[in-house]
Amino acid sequence: MTQESAEVRAKSLKAIADPARLRLISMVAAYEDAEACVCDLQEPFGLSQTTVSHHFKVLVEAGILHREKRGTWAYFSLVPGALASVAPLLSSPTR
Amino acid sequence: MTQESAEVRAKSLKAIADPARLRLISMVAAYEDAEACVCDLQEPFGLSQTTVSHHFKVLVEAGILHREKRGTWAYFSLVPGALASVAPLLSSPTR
Repeated sequence: MTQESAEVRAKSLKAIADPARLRLISMVAAYEDAEACVCDLQEPFGLSQTTVSHHFKVLVEAGILHREKRGTWAYFSLVPGALASVAPLLSSPTR
Repeated sequence: MTQESAEVRAKSLKAIADPARLRLISMVAAYEDAEACVCDLQEPFGLSQTTVSHHFKVLVEAGILHREKRGTWAYFSLVPGALASVAPLLSSPTR
């Protein structure tokens, strides 16, 4: 793995290496078509809207989630392949 | 994903979310039997022994690598399944 490739992957990993963000990602992934409205994603966490918005901002900037504004609400979906770039590294070889 | 599960996974992810550590992990994985002597792992990086040792310590404490002392040298290997616990989360659904 080159230094450049490692820096890119480390950046993505840092973005998701947070318990709240991991839970948000898994919730978005669980929705039909892996898309969820922000209005559905605050209550289960007990986090403020400001905090949830911050986490979403980190994930969008890291290219993990895609944000689409439709009317009043923002809809989040997983960016295809975004997480897959780190997945191969994370499958440990069998021994 | 429960809060507890998310915290465990976030901890593992934080341990590997570093470019040098990602490269160390991939180098260990590339060795036969996925085991490497610390003596083989310093030169290619251009990092000091102290820095490499620090990174290894983080990875061992996070349960990602196993360390075994044999004679003068320490040998590192991937802990089976350690990285696999985060891999399923990181396979994005197909769209």
